[in-house]
Amino acid sequence: MSQDQKPNTENALAMGRRKFMNTAALASLTGLVACNNKSGASASAEASGSASATAHSAADVTHLKPGELDTYYGLWSGGHNGDMRVLGLPSGREIHRIPCFVPDALVGWGITNESKKVMGTRPDGSLKYNVADTHHTHASYKDGNYDGRYAWINDKINSRVARIRLDYFICDKITDLPNVQGFHGIFPDKADPVDEKINYTTRVFCGGEFSIPLPNAGIEDGSKYRSLFTCVDAESMEVRWQVLIDGNCDLVATSYDGKLAATNQYNTEMGVHYEDMMSAERDACLFFNVARIEAAVKAGKFKTIGDSKVPVVDGTHEANKDPKTALTAYVSVPKNPHGVNASPDAKYFICAGKLSPTATVIELAKVLDWFDGKLEKIDDAIVAEVELGLGPLHTAFDGRGNAYTTLFLDSQVVKWNVDAAIKFHKGDKNAKYVVDRLDVQYQPGHLNASQSETRAADGKYLAVGCKFSKDRFLPVGPLHPENEQFIDISGEKMVLLADHPVRGEPHDFIIFKRDLLRPKQVYNLDDFPLAVKDPKESGVFRNGKKVTVKLTSQAPAFSMREFKLKKGDEVTLILTNLDKIEDLTHGIAIPKYNVQFVVNPLETASVNFVADKPGVFWLYCTNFCHALHLEMRTRMIVEG
Amino acid sequence: MSQDQKPNTENALAMGRRKFMNTAALASLTGLVACNNKSGASASAEASGSASATAHSAADVTHLKPGELDTYYGLWSGGHNGDMRVLGLPSGREIHRIPCFVPDALVGWGITNESKKVMGTRPDGSLKYNVADTHHTHASYKDGNYDGRYAWINDKINSRVARIRLDYFICDKITDLPNVQGFHGIFPDKADPVDEKINYTTRVFCGGEFSIPLPNAGIEDGSKYRSLFTCVDAESMEVRWQVLIDGNCDLVATSYDGKLAATNQYNTEMGVHYEDMMSAERDACLFFNVARIEAAVKAGKFKTIGDSKVPVVDGTHEANKDPKTALTAYVSVPKNPHGVNASPDAKYFICAGKLSPTATVIELAKVLDWFDGKLEKIDDAIVAEVELGLGPLHTAFDGRGNAYTTLFLDSQVVKWNVDAAIKFHKGDKNAKYVVDRLDVQYQPGHLNASQSETRAADGKYLAVGCKFSKDRFLPVGPLHPENEQFIDISGEKMVLLADHPVRGEPHDFIIFKRDLLRPKQVYNLDDFPLAVKDPKESGVFRNGKKVTVKLTSQAPAFSMREFKLKKGDEVTLILTNLDKIEDLTHGIAIPKYNVQFVVNPLETASVNFVADKPGVFWLYCTNFCHALHLEMRTRMIVEG
Repeated sequence: MSQDQKPNTENALAMGRRKFMNTAALASLTGLVACNNKSGASASAEASGSASATAHSAADVTHLKPGELDTYYGLWSGGHNGDMRVLGLPSGREIHRIPCFVPDALVGWGITNESKKVMGTRPDGSLKYNVADTHHTHASYKDGNYDGRYAWINDKINSRVARIRLDYFICDKITDLPNVQGFHGIFPDKADPVDEKINYTTRVFCGGEFSIPLPNAGIEDGSKYRSLFTCVDAESMEVRWQVLIDGNCDLVATSYDGKLAATNQYNTEMGVHYEDMMSAERDACLFFNVARIEAAVKAGKFKTIGDSKVPVVDGTHEANKDPKTALTAYVSVPKNPHGVNASPDAKYFICAGKLSPTATVIELAKVLDWFDGKLEKIDDAIVAEVELGLGPLHTAFDGRGNAYTTLFLDSQVVKWNVDAAIKFHKGDKNAKYVVDRLDVQYQPGHLNASQSETRAADGKYLAVGCKFSKDRFLPVGPLHPENEQFIDISGEKMVLLADHPVRGEPHDFIIFKRDLLRPKQVYNLDDFPLAVKDPKESGVFRNGKKVTVKLTSQAPAFSMREFKLKKGDEVTLILTNLDKIEDLTHGIAIPKYNVQFVVNPLETASVNFVADKPGVFWLYCTNFCHALHLEMRTRMIVEG
Repeated sequence: MSQDQKPNTENALAMGRRKFMNTAALASLTGLVACNNKSGASASAEASGSASATAHSAADVTHLKPGELDTYYGLWSGGHNGDMRVLGLPSGREIHRIPCFVPDALVGWGITNESKKVMGTRPDGSLKYNVADTHHTHASYKDGNYDGRYAWINDKINSRVARIRLDYFICDKITDLPNVQGFHGIFPDKADPVDEKINYTTRVFCGGEFSIPLPNAGIEDGSKYRSLFTCVDAESMEVRWQVLIDGNCDLVATSYDGKLAATNQYNTEMGVHYEDMMSAERDACLFFNVARIEAAVKAGKFKTIGDSKVPVVDGTHEANKDPKTALTAYVSVPKNPHGVNASPDAKYFICAGKLSPTATVIELAKVLDWFDGKLEKIDDAIVAEVELGLGPLHTAFDGRGNAYTTLFLDSQVVKWNVDAAIKFHKGDKNAKYVVDRLDVQYQPGHLNASQSETRAADGKYLAVGCKFSKDRFLPVGPLHPENEQFIDISGEKMVLLADHPVRGEPHDFIIFKRDLLRPKQVYNLDDFPLAVKDPKESGVFRNGKKVTVKLTSQAPAFSMREFKLKKGDEVTLILTNLDKIEDLTHGIAIPKYNVQFVVNPLETASVNFVADKPGVFWLYCTNFCHALHLEMRTRMIVEG
């Protein structure tokens, strides 16, 4: 039975009836989301409770005076937008979108040769993929806090991992994960498991969610399918190794000492139909012993799969029965857990039950004890398993010992104290672990707190990505925005501050103090091999049908007023922006030739096209640059 | 000499020195933007003046309590994002993005067959264009106010006009303008010029900015280039007629009586180099007599150009010397004007000077008098030409007789009284037409007020799209966001309320009361010819290599758990979302097959692909729909 300071009779009853829901009970959940269709606008006053009483102060917290800067950055995964979003907080303003997996018409991502090289192309030069589905983004660490070097983000559809440089806020590398389908969770390590001097990120761990034949062939028998857990090198972005596992991978967490990575598993049954996927009452949190895996790889104890040369070690139950040599450890967690999060005190990983109303607290020291042969049963590493409410998904932390877990079905965030939960689990039924509950609108998935998964968790703000907005915003047709809500967690009670509409899907994100980043605002001319460093280098350089057009921009003019091509020319147009003043970006568009891209201060970009249409084409600047911006053009004359 | 209640000595001097700037003076403007690099954060307190004093009330105005709805819609052109944005105001929250000209990975725009049909494809089935540059959006009128049927938006790069249905907030038609390059301004008419019963929009006018050879061939001699003004039918979206003109078209305005459309011309010189484009001291506002043009078309007085069958009438000076038969009238306006806006009292069109510090007020009744032979000189329709400041661009209205004009070079919005300006122009030097000035950050382009260009202009809010943000937001690398600022204009003094970062380029937009729209939140199943109306209709239907896969979605499952294909099959996958509850959108992704799209409640969409990769592929739902969303999959087995 759940203990609850602000009990909701119906939920309490429901939880009492089914400690862990069984399959039959779940069938009745179908449509539950749809039925919970309370009117947002009218329900908000009652639902928000304490929040509406403090609406005035909420305005003061989140409304920045014009010109005032936000104090936190947020890096947000863009869902099936396929990009990364950069927010300023507490205002919630979206300051930037960083294209990575999918084309972006504004900057010309997927149009320029430079971006196509990062994205990957087919033999005919077209993009390999135009779609993506990003879920999780996490940044590089040093000393247990973000160091402002990189962030990584996943593409679930095509099993790709992208790296974002946090100096220029651009994607510089994309890596395909071999033999992985449904790449979901991602997390960088925080230290090396062996070398104590390496107290920063050097690996990125990636969880494969969907089991498939390895190598992939059209096999119907699902019992032959398996999943892989992948380690990518943070610097080279090469795949270092993979682990063949039982069950699947959902989210990923890493320990502060670098020794452990883990993934929650919602389909230990390895079912291919959804009722099979939830037939077991307990699934797992699967731990990886990083040092042992790398020793095994070094010792040649691996195989490879299909065309891939990546070493794959065996992390299945069968091969890892002896704790003292095991590469992996499967800790059981109730029913289809979703989410695994590392507490900022470095002690615990917490898994939420999703189809169980519980959170499971696993003590990392005990997991290491098991690997050392000092703990009899791996499940003895579980130090708490407490009821929180219906549909628990993800957990954030305030650095004061409290955890915040989203309850998807209850449409709540529950604040609970980890130490109290451990006491309660040990038998102290007077230990009040639930501290507060806040209704959110509606069906929350991910949440995160400022600095939550760092040693510097500061317990100031919490954001929560609600999967349904219903009528929280002006209607805009059938495709609703989702609702990202912003919450003050600095006090005992959570206070809802603001609703922010967001294009789907609101997945994972991180929030951190602004002084952790030192972005650069102007590029270095020398970083671009094709740079046209002086307007005098401009011109049309012909080698038979191969033509290179070199152009520079300086407000309000391009370096050439006009240039001539012949029909059929195979053209490479190179544009360097010689304006070196911050914020003085130019763009260039070629009508009918499907070209548009921007060049930021001292950036160089290039495009290839065939001059297949004769006529006069006005190339014009698309990024407002000057009072004479409209007049900033160059004339391309293609002779027929 | 300008009159100014809050004089800025330097500007006043500058204006005195050059009533109309000449070419030599302009040369010194190069780099002016770059040099005006004051620090945003530190400058804001002094710059905002009255605003910072009222920051507390600004928070109360713009911060909505969680669950509270905005009171105004904003439709925003997306710049070189190529889409349309839907905002809620006064919060400034972006509620929706409507893809039209460019692909959108989230909804699958450019991926589904249905969206590709709207966007246009090449013979090989790939998209004709992936880039666009939208500048202006305006909505359909009835009785001088928005009627909530449609909005239109331009693509400058490829000369396309898109229509947005405001019931479903989707793009349903895109039309290519023949023989037009650099399609810039766009405005629907507000009534029929002849039939008084038609008191609503039936035409959309489109201005061609770049002069080219007609038909387009690689001719170097710019004196042979011309521009066209185009009329598109609001319902059929067919091009009705075009007008061959002297000079070029920039923005477009229409009169409330339907009789007149106009475009400002910044390049009456028809120069091909930018110094030629600004050699004349006066350019023009070009008026079109809609009824006479349509009578000419009906009478067969037109030609056609190249392959286009669109009738083109002659609107050049030479052919329109006699006012009584003229189709067009060229009113002179100082130096490279930018922007033409219709006052809500239906009396005036106002052009800003851009390279002249003036605004020119043209009285429409007098333009009609000229067409009737009652006004001797067309320039006698000018009833005011007053100095406002440096770089005037666009004008909005409050319905109380005041106009608000952006000053690009001064980085200000100037509020001025139109009647007082007319008095001043007539000789009353005591008429104080400048009412207020507000510094904005920085270099403002478009601005618009709530309901500004309707008879219901309510003078409550003003938004202004600043082209440079410099350091108004947390740094995010070389590509800065632009800064859309939100201003309270309900009082005598303007009050700056908030800064909103926005991806470039902040162009034109409209703001109107929320009760003017009645969006639909669920589709009609019968509107989709391919709809799979019952899960029982699902299946794989084979006709040789042509295979149709019919699928439905109902949370948390697709209608088929798995289906089989053979390598090489040419597949059409049709998905109908049978969930009919508002906000219950599903998505579907096919790993490695470059497919992702969403289906909203009762929507049907389809994609074509060749099953060229054997293996097992988990098609999964990308739009969070249910507690068992992660388990919502179907298995596609492609046999090798």
